[in-house]
Amino acid sequence: MRTIDWVDGAVEIIDQTALPGELRVLRLHTVGELVAAIQSLAVRGAPALGVAGAFGVALAARAHADDPGALRTAVQRIETARPTAVNLARGARRAALLLPSGPDAVLAEACAIRDEEIAASDSMAARGADLVAELCGDRPRLLTHCNTGGLCAVVGGTALGVVGELHRRGNLGGVVASETRPLLQGARLTTWELSRWGVEHRVAVDSAGPFLMARREVDAVILGADRICANGDVINKIGTYSHALGARRAGIPFIVVAPESTVDLSTGGGAEVEIEDRGSAEVTQWAEAVNPAFDITPFDLVTAVVTERRVVRLDRGDQMKS
Amino acid sequence: MRTIDWVDGAVEIIDQTALPGELRVLRLHTVGELVAAIQSLAVRGAPALGVAGAFGVALAARAHADDPGALRTAVQRIETARPTAVNLARGARRAALLLPSGPDAVLAEACAIRDEEIAASDSMAARGADLVAELCGDRPRLLTHCNTGGLCAVVGGTALGVVGELHRRGNLGGVVASETRPLLQGARLTTWELSRWGVEHRVAVDSAGPFLMARREVDAVILGADRICANGDVINKIGTYSHALGARRAGIPFIVVAPESTVDLSTGGGAEVEIEDRGSAEVTQWAEAVNPAFDITPFDLVTAVVTERRVVRLDRGDQMKS
Repeated sequence: MRTIDWVDGAVEIIDQTALPGELRVLRLHTVGELVAAIQSLAVRGAPALGVAGAFGVALAARAHADDPGALRTAVQRIETARPTAVNLARGARRAALLLPSGPDAVLAEACAIRDEEIAASDSMAARGADLVAELCGDRPRLLTHCNTGGLCAVVGGTALGVVGELHRRGNLGGVVASETRPLLQGARLTTWELSRWGVEHRVAVDSAGPFLMARREVDAVILGADRICANGDVINKIGTYSHALGARRAGIPFIVVAPESTVDLSTGGGAEVEIEDRGSAEVTQWAEAVNPAFDITPFDLVTAVVTERRVVRLDRGDQMKS
Repeated sequence: MRTIDWVDGAVEIIDQTALPGELRVLRLHTVGELVAAIQSLAVRGAPALGVAGAFGVALAARAHADDPGALRTAVQRIETARPTAVNLARGARRAALLLPSGPDAVLAEACAIRDEEIAASDSMAARGADLVAELCGDRPRLLTHCNTGGLCAVVGGTALGVVGELHRRGNLGGVVASETRPLLQGARLTTWELSRWGVEHRVAVDSAGPFLMARREVDAVILGADRICANGDVINKIGTYSHALGARRAGIPFIVVAPESTVDLSTGGGAEVEIEDRGSAEVTQWAEAVNPAFDITPFDLVTAVVTERRVVRLDRGDQMKS
């Protein structure tokens, strides 16, 4: 089952706001519907957003074949629907390069992006599982944050794909899923995927992660990224940075798994990235809130970045620029 | 308005599970009702738990004046209603020392404990506000965690009492209230108290704290304690440790405000303290959870402990044993 796909002339997504209560598929026929789905987080996760951006341009190319101005506006709406993950704008722009060749060429390019993300998941799972085994030995107990499974990609996933691969190898000692406030992607989505895979797991509130590491209940932290900067700074779901601080103090590996489509060498470091604030209502009904959806983990706290092509050992001075 | 008091032969508490929606006062006539209120967190916070423990023994002394066995059992039930805050057992034991002198003497001792906590709040507020001004200068922006206002004490509070005092002095630059999952004492109770005091504030999810510090939006962290060990390790609401890690990395002060009744020199360090796990249901309906209600912040991450008697500068090598 794919999180996002092109089916019979429209974009189909699993509605991630309805999980785990209901497995609901949405058909998106227009750019407006797609942008709304991106902004409500019905579709989310950096790799899936890249595919969504490309399919969005395919929708736009069909709707505005005779109106270049409307087409340009539509592509821009897609690119800027959310600011932080580099994949969304990148996927949209890559598909848009084919606009001169017509709607069918755009759709073919979008499908290629989808297929590349599927292949990348397999490769990341294998490389990541090898690295975890190398760093942690047998049956490590892993802590993960947010959702990085098939729901964030197309199938498979990034960091959670590694967890699944370790499970298939019979070499997983346990999983703690950080609940991931305010929208509970960990408690809702990661638990749903792990249950389907038959992987035992426990949820913890986000702020318990560093303490569980200090209590020696976690052997490594493994999670995804929305953007990886040229210097190795990692932009990811809010809470990532505090887990990185916990891992450093506990002396355990902190591993980031993300496709090359997330690596943004044109951004020097985390300070250059716009961090989306999603407003008060997501957090509380009782007060104003400051609600950064992402945070910045400085490269010196990251043990390694795993992509479909390579393992970048930031702890040994490897550089993202290869 | 007092969080807990003895009124007309019963213990009256503000039901903290009903806030901020409703300001409901519960009258507790029996040890069973009191223990249930402690376990449901209708009354919570280390200083308030000390008073609750003492009033509980006063209830027991009246109910079981002629049955020493039942009285012993009741006192033990109160002492062990929750394991982590030292104040509960300490308040109960101190009141129980008066049992040979009869119920009225027990009640008088319980009222003395209540009055001492009220006086301690005033003194902590003044000392803490002086320290914050010394460390941070004018109009600091503070981050606090859980609820440490009048609701955790009898009136006034510990760390939030300091925030209130800085506000009264016109020397407060802002407050971020960490929401405090899973039971949201920050988002529910701290916001309620700050609103009543007319103090502007914003809520943040717990895992955003370290990132807000890294972004230079917070000048100091100030929070309470459920137990302070002989070596200076601080046991406090889950999330405290990750805020301490964030403060250390950002190079800002991490200040603990708690009455002497929280200082437990008979406990050498945090590893000796039983950390209450409150079960899965508080955290999520979708999976098993690990739910430590408290964590341990090692003394080397603590800038200072402020009590009603003293400021212990752990960062300068001061010792809790004075």
